[in-house]
Amino acid sequence: MNEFIWPIRVYYEDTDAGGIVYYANYLKFMERARTEWLREKGFEQTALKQQYNLIIVVHQISIKYIKPAFFDDLLTITVHISKMGKASLIMAQKVLRETEIICTAEVKLAGVNAVTLRLQEFPLDVFNRLVQK
Amino acid sequence: MNEFIWPIRVYYEDTDAGGIVYYANYLKFMERARTEWLREKGFEQTALKQQYNLIIVVHQISIKYIKPAFFDDLLTITVHISKMGKASLIMAQKVLRETEIICTAEVKLAGVNAVTLRLQEFPLDVFNRLVQK
Amino acid sequence: MNEFIWPIRVYYEDTDAGGIVYYANYLKFMERARTEWLREKGFEQTALKQQYNLIIVVHQISIKYIKPAFFDDLLTITVHISKMGKASLIMAQKVLRETEIICTAEVKLAGVNAVTLRLQEFPLDVFNRLVQK
Amino acid sequence: MNEFIWPIRVYYEDTDAGGIVYYANYLKFMERARTEWLREKGFEQTALKQQYNLIIVVHQISIKYIKPAFFDDLLTITVHISKMGKASLIMAQKVLRETEIICTAEVKLAGVNAVTLRLQEFPLDVFNRLVQK
Repeated sequence: MNEFIWPIRVYYEDTDAGGIVYYANYLKFMERARTEWLREKGFEQTALKQQYNLIIVVHQISIKYIKPAFFDDLLTITVHISKMGKASLIMAQKVLRETEIICTAEVKLAGVNAVTLRLQEFPLDVFNRLVQK
Repeated sequence: MNEFIWPIRVYYEDTDAGGIVYYANYLKFMERARTEWLREKGFEQTALKQQYNLIIVVHQISIKYIKPAFFDDLLTITVHISKMGKASLIMAQKVLRETEIICTAEVKLAGVNAVTLRLQEFPLDVFNRLVQK
Repeated sequence: MNEFIWPIRVYYEDTDAGGIVYYANYLKFMERARTEWLREKGFEQTALKQQYNLIIVVHQISIKYIKPAFFDDLLTITVHISKMGKASLIMAQKVLRETEIICTAEVKLAGVNAVTLRLQEFPLDVFNRLVQK
Repeated sequence: MNEFIWPIRVYYEDTDAGGIVYYANYLKFMERARTEWLREKGFEQTALKQQYNLIIVVHQISIKYIKPAFFDDLLTITVHISKMGKASLIMAQKVLRETEIICTAEVKLAGVNAVTLRLQEFPLDVFNRLVQK
C-alpha cells in the first residue's frame, strides 16, 4: 500500500468564527502529514539540508474544499505521490473524517539547493526511498 | 480600472524558519484584500449575513509560488474578478513586491445560505455591485 | 501523580524567521495539552457546553520564555492545576524538550455561561473530576 | 505624548469557533504595533541586526483578557515603555475598540546578540531614540 496516513485532532486554534476549520489551516495539516511521511522514510528535513544541501519547497497547491470539519474532530490526512520527477514531485493528499472527504489537494514540491535556491535533483538515494512502497 | 489593491506589511508572525513568508500565510493575505475589496464596495460580511442570510465561502484555491517574500517587506495584493456566476465567482489575485510577482492564485468563492449551507444566488443588488467597475 | 503530559512535535508552521518556534505558538501548544487533559478526564468541551451551558475561557496568562525550541523538536507539555476555585482555576504549565525547560506559564481559566458569558461555577461533578488525581 | 498607537482590523483568520478573536492572536497584534513603533523611531529590525548584531526578543508576557473582539472590528493597539533598562525594557500595551479595553499586557523585551544569543546592552544611539518622546 503506497499511502501514508497521519491523524490530526482539530483544536480551537484551527477554527474560525464560522465554527469550522479555517480553510488555510488544511495546508498546515497536509504539511504535518508530509513531514511525518518523510520522517517515516528516514528523512528529517534538517538532515536533508545538512547532508545534501537540499531543501524541499512548495511550488504549487490546488485544493478543493468539500465539507467542513469542526472543533474536536479527529481527522486523517493521506499522503501519496501522484507523480515523481527528478527534482520535483506531485503529492495527492486528502483530509478525511472517517470516510467522509473534507478536502483534497495536489501539492507540487521541488527540491532546491539550500544556498542558491535553484532546482536541484534529488540524490538517487533520496529518490529511491521516496518512491519505494 | 477593474483591479483593487491592498498593501500588506510582512511581520515576524508571517515568517518561517526558512527566513521567508510561510506559504500558507499568502492565503490569509489574499483574504484580507478580498475583505477590504468587499468593504470598499459597501459590503461588510456580517451585514451580508444579517441582511441576506448569505455567506461567502472558499470552494477552491490554486496558488503558484514564484518568489519568496521576507520580514518587513511591503507587499501589494491585487483583487480582480476573472469569472462571475450567479452563485459563485472566481477571483484572480496576485501578491507583488513592487513589480515583482511573489505568488498568484485563483480563488473560487461561492455564496451559500448561512443556515442550510447550500449554494444561494447572489441577490441582484449584490451581484451588480460586485461586477461594477 | 497529579501531572498530565502531552507530546507535541514542532512543524514548519510553528517556526519564525529567527529559526525558532514563534513565541505566540507556545500558547497554542499549551491549549492543546489542556484540551487533551480535559478529554482524558472525560470532558469534551463541546459536551460541556451542551450539557451544562458551560464554556471555559482564558482570563489571564503569564508566560516566561527560557530557551528556544526548533523545527522537528519533540516537546512535552505539562498540565497541572496550581489553584482551584469554584468558577475559575489556575493551571501551571511547562514546555520541555526532554529535561530542558523551554517556557513556563500560569494560565487562569474561568467557567462562563455560554449565553450570558458571565462567570458560572463549575458543576460539582465537573469540579470533582477536575481536581481528582 | 509618549504613546504610539497602531490600528488593526480583525479578519476572519483572527477569529475562532467562539466567534471572537482567538486569544493568542492578540500577541501578534501587539507585536505588529511594536514593530511599527520601532519603524517610526527609525529602526527596522533587519537593520538593527545588520548594523549592531542586535536582535530584540520577547522574554516574558503577562496578558489579561477583559472583553472579546469580533470579526470586522477595528482595534487600536497602544505601545508605551513602562520601564527602560540597559539591555531590556518592559512595554505596557493595550488593545482597544474605541474606548473599550479588550486586553492589556506587559511585554518584557531584551536585546540579545544575534550570534551568541546572550544579553547585549542597547547601543547608546538606540537607547536614546527608544526613550525619546
